[in-house]
Parts: sequence; C-alpha cells; structure tokens
Amino acid sequence: MALVPKVTSITALPASEARWIEFHKIAWTDQTGTSRIWEAASRKTRGSSGVDAVAIQTIIRHPSKPPSTIIILQYRPPADAICVEFPAGLVDQKETPSDASVRELHEETGYQGKLLYISPTIVSDPGMSSANMQLATIEVELKEGDKEPEQVLDEGEFIERVVVPLEELFPRLEEYNAKGMKVDARLWHWAAGLHFATTMR
Amino acid sequence: MALVPKVTSITALPASEARWIEFHKIAWTDQTGTSRIWEAASRKTRGSSGVDAVAIQTIIRHPSKPPSTIIILQYRPPADAICVEFPAGLVDQKETPSDASVRELHEETGYQGKLLYISPTIVSDPGMSSANMQLATIEVELKEGDKEPEQVLDEGEFIERVVVPLEELFPRLEEYNAKGMKVDARLWHWAAGLHFATTMR
Repeated sequence: MALVPKVTSITALPASEARWIEFHKIAWTDQTGTSRIWEAASRKTRGSSGVDAVAIQTIIRHPSKPPSTIIILQYRPPADAICVEFPAGLVDQKETPSDASVRELHEETGYQGKLLYISPTIVSDPGMSSANMQLATIEVELKEGDKEPEQVLDEGEFIERVVVPLEELFPRLEEYNAKGMKVDARLWHWAAGLHFATTMR
Repeated sequence: MALVPKVTSITALPASEARWIEFHKIAWTDQTGTSRIWEAASRKTRGSSGVDAVAIQTIIRHPSKPPSTIIILQYRPPADAICVEFPAGLVDQKETPSDASVRELHEETGYQGKLLYISPTIVSDPGMSSANMQLATIEVELKEGDKEPEQVLDEGEFIERVVVPLEELFPRLEEYNAKGMKVDARLWHWAAGLHFATTMR
C-alpha cells in the first residue's frame, strides 16, 4: 500500500547544488531608458524545442457517455499536497512538443488519441519565471465496451487519473479543493472558462 | 514616448542577493517511504493571507455592446516580451485576496466593479514553485455613454489595457502571439475553455 508522501524539511538551496532550476538576475532597461533588475527562476532542462513542458486538454468521446476530460492527481512537494492537473510533463531534449503531448498522455493515463491542436508557446508565471509550455488538444474516440487502458508509469511514479464529464469538471475541482487537494491554476482557469460559458453568460 | 524595454544581461543570482524569490531544497518521503529531494522556487513576499497573488476575470456588461473582458499588455523581463495577461498583482502584506483583486483591477484598468466570486487558492506551477494565487470574478456594469476610466498606475508602470468581447478573446490571443507577444498560460487556458465550450463541443 502506498504511504502518504510528506515534506520532512525545507532548506535554502545553494545555486551550486541546483540541478533542475536556476536563479537569474536579469538586467533590463525599461520604457524610460532606466536600468533595472528583475529576479527570475528558470528550468535547466529546456531542450532543442525551446519549450519546457506540455499539458493536455483531452476530449474523450463515447457513444453513450457525455464528453469527458482526464485530470490527474499527483503529490507535488512544492505544494506539499496532492495537486489536480491536466496530464503534463517536460519535453525531452530532442523531442517536439507535439510528440511530447501524445507520449505524456499515454504514459500518465494510458489513453491514445488524435492531436487536434497545439497552442503556441505560452508562459507559465511570467512575473516570476521563464518557464513556458504548450497546451495540446487530444481527442480520444472510444467504442461501446472499450476497457480503461493501462497507465505506463515509471517505477516510483504515483499518478491517479480521473475521467470527468466536462459538465462536472468545475464543481469537481471545487470538491477536490475542499478535500485538501490543490488545483493547478491552469486547469482551474480552463474549467472556469468552460463553466463561465455554460452558466454565467 | 515610451522606449522599447529590453534585457541587457542575464547572470546567475546568488542566493545571498535575492530579494524577491528564493530557492528551496525540499526533502520529502515518497509513497514507498524513500527519502527524496525536490528543488523549487518561492516568493519571499507572501503576506498574512498565505496567498501570493490574485488575477481578475472581469465581465463587462453594457446595454448595447457584447459582454467583454479586460486583458493587459505588459513587458515582462523573465519572458523578454510583452505578455498578455488577466489584470493581476501581488497581495499586500496585510491585505485579503478579495481586497487585492478589487484594488488591482482598479489600478491596472481604472474599472471598478462587484466581486462576484473568488476561487480557492490554486497553485501556479506546482512542479517548479510554491507560487499560488486566487482568481476573482468581477462584474462591471456600464451605462450607455460611460467614458473609459483612467488607470491608476505607479510612476514607471507601463500597462496597456484592452477590452475584448468574449467571443473574440481566443482568436485575439492567437493574433497577439503571432505579433510576437507571449500569452500567459492561465489566461490562455481560460480562453481555451471558453472557446471549447462555444465551438468544439
């Protein structure tokens, strides 16, 4: 049985020890010509695509079930909580973001589908970091009686996938939050946009 | 006339000099009981609310114009580009996120409205940082002939606001991207959710 993961200590990370992220002091000149400094974090793992990560907005279509999407539940040490996110992952060194999105969806959820669209490069938290990503739309067509596929996880990876009817997504995220999980801001925004379109307009 | 801002140099930021962000080495035990390390960035500015930042999904209602939202264009050194975002800002030390959202909307856009909803605390990029935020929904009711209000910017703040009909939001973000701006991932996801609801379903 899986144990409950937890943070045991948080200490300062010296720049010389950092393997995955780095800190930058960005010197820039502003709109008045004044020299200024901005502090930012960057990933050290960006490959030839120039894109750090991909996330996948999956649309599952089924003959007798409502259109659904897939979200994943995964413990994240920086939040010290189970986070609720779209399937996502880092783009490998020589991989394209499109290939990474198909691969990550398959690994994290078992599902394989058709890549309908991939966003341009968007920036994850541009006041604080240079991290960027692309959001892919993948459509999965299921037939009556199709079994739930197997995930393809690495050893030591604990990722729970949940198929959620699109109409239930926003209230479901509120429920997960009420249970102590933390919802990823990007997934929350997607669900809020969808919810707004169908309820408040 | 405003100059074009630009990055002049990027150097390593020693932890001892960092004023706004810090690096953490997080020791944690995983689901098998194994001790592991995760590297993450944090903001040093979090106040008593426990929430770093707020963003605002504004809904402008007008007797003869289509429902619209407000986005802002602002140069961001970590992206070295003009970024397209929802109005947003850091929560002050003793402020509530609800108050911060009303204040930031007013400062960055001039608009004042009614706070309809604020999300729970959501996490901005939980694989890389502890940064968190809340997303507020503010409704602005305009009357026929209302003038566009004045922004309340600090000296040295250059923020352009754009009112966009909701139906045009997603293609507008694609256009800004094509012109070399970078769209914030959270705004992109909101627009993609809205667009999905109205076109692809």
